[in-house]
Amino acid sequence: MTNGIQNGFYNEINPDGFGVVIKAGKVLFSKHSDFQKVEIFETGSKLGRVLTLDDLMMTTEGDEFYYHEMIAHIPMMNHKCPESVLVIGGGDGGTVREVLKHNTVKKVVLCEIDGMVIDACKEFLPTIAGKLDDPRVEIRVEDAIEFIKDKKNEYDIVLIDSTDPMGPGEGLFTEEFYTNVKNSLKKGGIVAAQSESPVVNKEEIKKMYNLLKKVFPICSTYTSNIPTYPGGYWAWAYCSETVEPLSYIDEKRCEEITKTCKIYNKDYHMARFALPNYLKELL
Amino acid sequence: MTNGIQNGFYNEINPDGFGVVIKAGKVLFSKHSDFQKVEIFETGSKLGRVLTLDDLMMTTEGDEFYYHEMIAHIPMMNHKCPESVLVIGGGDGGTVREVLKHNTVKKVVLCEIDGMVIDACKEFLPTIAGKLDDPRVEIRVEDAIEFIKDKKNEYDIVLIDSTDPMGPGEGLFTEEFYTNVKNSLKKGGIVAAQSESPVVNKEEIKKMYNLLKKVFPICSTYTSNIPTYPGGYWAWAYCSETVEPLSYIDEKRCEEITKTCKIYNKDYHMARFALPNYLKELL
Repeated sequence: MTNGIQNGFYNEINPDGFGVVIKAGKVLFSKHSDFQKVEIFETGSKLGRVLTLDDLMMTTEGDEFYYHEMIAHIPMMNHKCPESVLVIGGGDGGTVREVLKHNTVKKVVLCEIDGMVIDACKEFLPTIAGKLDDPRVEIRVEDAIEFIKDKKNEYDIVLIDSTDPMGPGEGLFTEEFYTNVKNSLKKGGIVAAQSESPVVNKEEIKKMYNLLKKVFPICSTYTSNIPTYPGGYWAWAYCSETVEPLSYIDEKRCEEITKTCKIYNKDYHMARFALPNYLKELL
Repeated sequence: MTNGIQNGFYNEINPDGFGVVIKAGKVLFSKHSDFQKVEIFETGSKLGRVLTLDDLMMTTEGDEFYYHEMIAHIPMMNHKCPESVLVIGGGDGGTVREVLKHNTVKKVVLCEIDGMVIDACKEFLPTIAGKLDDPRVEIRVEDAIEFIKDKKNEYDIVLIDSTDPMGPGEGLFTEEFYTNVKNSLKKGGIVAAQSESPVVNKEEIKKMYNLLKKVFPICSTYTSNIPTYPGGYWAWAYCSETVEPLSYIDEKRCEEITKTCKIYNKDYHMARFALPNYLKELL
């Protein structure tokens, strides 16, 4: 069985021999961009519409909050006053939407290589992409590898909301790229990067953290569940030059943002860095 | 698509319209007992062999530890000296295996209604069921609803390792049954019960906790991920008359048992009761 929609079901099987199956309805969008196959389909279920890139699950209307709340609020709440934020990848707009909930934010740059992803999500996934038109958002349809090269002391927070370390996202998993990301940070800056599934991407995780640890003096991991992602369980890297994770939580901002979230709250935040033994050993 | 094995793939789709797909190899065991269809099949992947009951995922060799470590060690480690333990359901033996890791344990009673499950698991899933022959284990092939009725002041820990609240497990989700479980506890006793997926079983969870809260003055929820269960995310009820969750952790026992576990450790334990907003609201 190959990944993708067949006989009314979307299948995605990981190399461990299992994966997710989703009842698929009408395909709303299916085109090849210069970088990848972009597809959005209906499910007719609580999952709502689904975005896949190269037949790999990116997000669903129904469970996107599991991912977007985690990549955004854990680093953002650990920063005393995040004003300037860079989101790399994240063309669906979900991460930008969560970032904008922080009333400290003055500017969010979204650097996404594939304009077709942005346009398709704006049209077909408005609950996710709807905040991309916010005046604080600057959209750059560019290769983040090039974009980041000359940025110095620009961002309080950088969120690497990339695809997997194969295909168009591959260059976002290198020591050179991470070094440029570090240099783009202001003093006290924090990076969060999606770092694959601890269940099925063990080798990729090992490789990625080995590189991150070369670049960032502080490099931790936090995890949370995502129902439709491989293994149902996901990890993010938390990196900084100076700011330890859990060293600060803005209580007032936390309270306000918790009201707008389906999973995020202070206790849940604090609990995210407690890792299972097998993942601690891997790192 | 119906649940079960078709064209070389096991599919299980939940009412939310998505679920798990597993590459299936040879079927090693497939029979109807007096209670249910019992099936064990090979996958040829890291998941190893898989046990299903009525075409619903029960356990896999590869990821069973996610479930069994959580149902056993959270309540066991919160008890100062768990000597006498009752496991209800759990015919695969995985919960019993974890319970026996605690050097305080003198006796474990396994009360499983379906002897065919026990026999099939002993034969085909020895890494899970292998400790059922331990001299401290007493196996009772009986209906737990009847078995528990006359038990008073017998157990330090009761673990309800049941199937879902439909089919043979249905009677294990009633106020009468929970009352009998409470009465079977010794002073300072603790109950843990599997309580379905917060992602896809919201109504079942609500109903179950409403009943548990009528019976137990202390009733909390803890969660962890399970890759092959619906939604990849699972909840357990922690109930007691007197012992609050996280009020005690036996440090020495915790250290010893952590060495034998793939996920369980003290930090992971402490983090398990931090719930996402939507689950807190549901409860």
